[in-house]
Amino acid sequence: MEKRNYQQGKPNRPIDYLKNSVDKVILIKVKRNRLFRAVLRSFDEHLNLYIEDATQLFEYMDEDGNVKEEHETLGNIVLRGDNVIFLNLAS
Amino acid sequence: MEKRNYQQGKPNRPIDYLKNSVDKVILIKVKRNRLFRAVLRSFDEHLNLYIEDATQLFEYMDEDGNVKEEHETLGNIVLRGDNVIFLNLAS
Amino acid sequence: MEKRNYQQGKPNRPIDYLKNSVDKVILIKVKRNRLFRAVLRSFDEHLNLYIEDATQLFEYMDEDGNVKEEHETLGNIVLRGDNVIFLNLAS
Amino acid sequence: MEKRNYQQGKPNRPIDYLKNSVDKVILIKVKRNRLFRAVLRSFDEHLNLYIEDATQLFEYMDEDGNVKEEHETLGNIVLRGDNVIFLNLAS
Amino acid sequence: MEKRNYQQGKPNRPIDYLKNSVDKVILIKVKRNRLFRAVLRSFDEHLNLYIEDATQLFEYMDEDGNVKEEHETLGNIVLRGDNVIFLNLAS
Amino acid sequence: MEKRNYQQGKPNRPIDYLKNSVDKVILIKVKRNRLFRAVLRSFDEHLNLYIEDATQLFEYMDEDGNVKEEHETLGNIVLRGDNVIFLNLAS
Amino acid sequence: MEKRNYQQGKPNRPIDYLKNSVDKVILIKVKRNRLFRAVLRSFDEHLNLYIEDATQLFEYMDEDGNVKEEHETLGNIVLRGDNVIFLNLAS
Repeated sequence: MEKRNYQQGKPNRPIDYLKNSVDKVILIKVKRNRLFRAVLRSFDEHLNLYIEDATQLFEYMDEDGNVKEEHETLGNIVLRGDNVIFLNLAS
Repeated sequence: MEKRNYQQGKPNRPIDYLKNSVDKVILIKVKRNRLFRAVLRSFDEHLNLYIEDATQLFEYMDEDGNVKEEHETLGNIVLRGDNVIFLNLAS
Repeated sequence: MEKRNYQQGKPNRPIDYLKNSVDKVILIKVKRNRLFRAVLRSFDEHLNLYIEDATQLFEYMDEDGNVKEEHETLGNIVLRGDNVIFLNLAS
Repeated sequence: MEKRNYQQGKPNRPIDYLKNSVDKVILIKVKRNRLFRAVLRSFDEHLNLYIEDATQLFEYMDEDGNVKEEHETLGNIVLRGDNVIFLNLAS
Repeated sequence: MEKRNYQQGKPNRPIDYLKNSVDKVILIKVKRNRLFRAVLRSFDEHLNLYIEDATQLFEYMDEDGNVKEEHETLGNIVLRGDNVIFLNLAS
Repeated sequence: MEKRNYQQGKPNRPIDYLKNSVDKVILIKVKRNRLFRAVLRSFDEHLNLYIEDATQLFEYMDEDGNVKEEHETLGNIVLRGDNVIFLNLAS
Repeated sequence: MEKRNYQQGKPNRPIDYLKNSVDKVILIKVKRNRLFRAVLRSFDEHLNLYIEDATQLFEYMDEDGNVKEEHETLGNIVLRGDNVIFLNLAS
């Protein structure tokens, strides 16, 4: 489990927990059913992200009602933070 | 029932009531029919959250019109606050 | 009828009328057809709310076109203000 | 016709025209096809409103394509301004 | 054609062009397929408007696919600016 | 090709590139499938626009699935910037 | 791989990674299923963009359920940043 210091001093903001994931692979869930897997290189307080080696996973429902996923290699991306739902951190 | 001090001094802001739920399991209702169960580790005034051991419960309607729920283990997550509808606190 | 002082001095802001409903049961109409009945404990200028003993009433239309309501006991909730349409105050 | 002073001095802001409707019945058109009829008691610059004796009129289309209206007595309401489309003032 | 002074000094802001339409009839195109015809009395930088003698023209598609328009006399209105798409000025 | 000075001094902001299109015909792509062709007279940092001699081109899909366009002469318009997707500049 | 300096000094903001793509071809993914390929000339902190030689690629689903793409040459464009989902940088 990740170390936390909010009990011995100033609590960490939620965004501070992203620092340990810089240069690691994370999952990024984005509005409109988009999902990215990428290496996190940079973030700011709006959750604007710069990510590298990004793969987009697009979820859709096929004609039998099954949820399918398409992969697409995208490379290096600047993602606008207001599209982010959540970031799934490297464990 | 939780102690309140808004009648003997400065009232608590709604967000102050989250402090007692840090390190406890809460439910997080998110837009687009998403629900998370997770341990709350950190929050800020925008309701940005850092949560651990998160499970996503996705509600959908099957072909018979029944509401179904899928579970998905997600791990550690930074959730962007503007997606939150409400937080159901540990009782 | 509630006393008002906007004619003899500084007018009350709309939000000031919530003060008399603290610790009372109110109805909270939320976007996406959600309705809560709960005891109001705390609010701020964004209409972020802390409510206790909350019950959610979810309205939907059944296959005959009738509006139905489901009840769900939720407990204690921090609700993000931007989801609020209106608060129906205790009379 | 209402008196205006924007031609002899500082022009009135649109919101200033609400002052004459305080304590009078107005109609409030709200997003998602909602309409309220109520006594305006208080407003602020975001068009947050405190209204009393509110009746909601909900418009919907029946199976023959006719626009129908349902009435619902609501009482006293704090309405969040970002839901407002327009206020139809007392004449 | 309207006189402009942005080439000989400080350019006019787009909103400054509304000044010549005060007390004149304009058309106001609003989100969700609404259209108003009214006398413009007051505006601010958010495009909040106070308009008088307003008529709402509601566009819809009938069962034959034709665009139809309904008229409704509304009177005096304060319109919240974030609903505005554009104002069609008096010529 | 347009001259740029961001390599020899302070870079231009994207909005600065609109200056050369003042008094020229541009295309304005707006949310909800709207397209305007008009003479740009004034703009601000929110992309609020004052345009003259505007024609609206409304795209829709006919019953055979073809994209059709309707033209409508509108005249002089103040357009609220938050509706803008992009401006196609005069070349 | 791009050089980064956030480990030896002040970390780069996500937007700073756009600087290396100025005057290069990038892909711009925009809300409502729009995709642009263009030469990036200028950007700001809101991700407002000035792009040249832009081609729009519009994705849609044909009657057999296949995703199709239409190309449209657009020229020089000022794009409002709040429409941007992500920028795919030149590699």
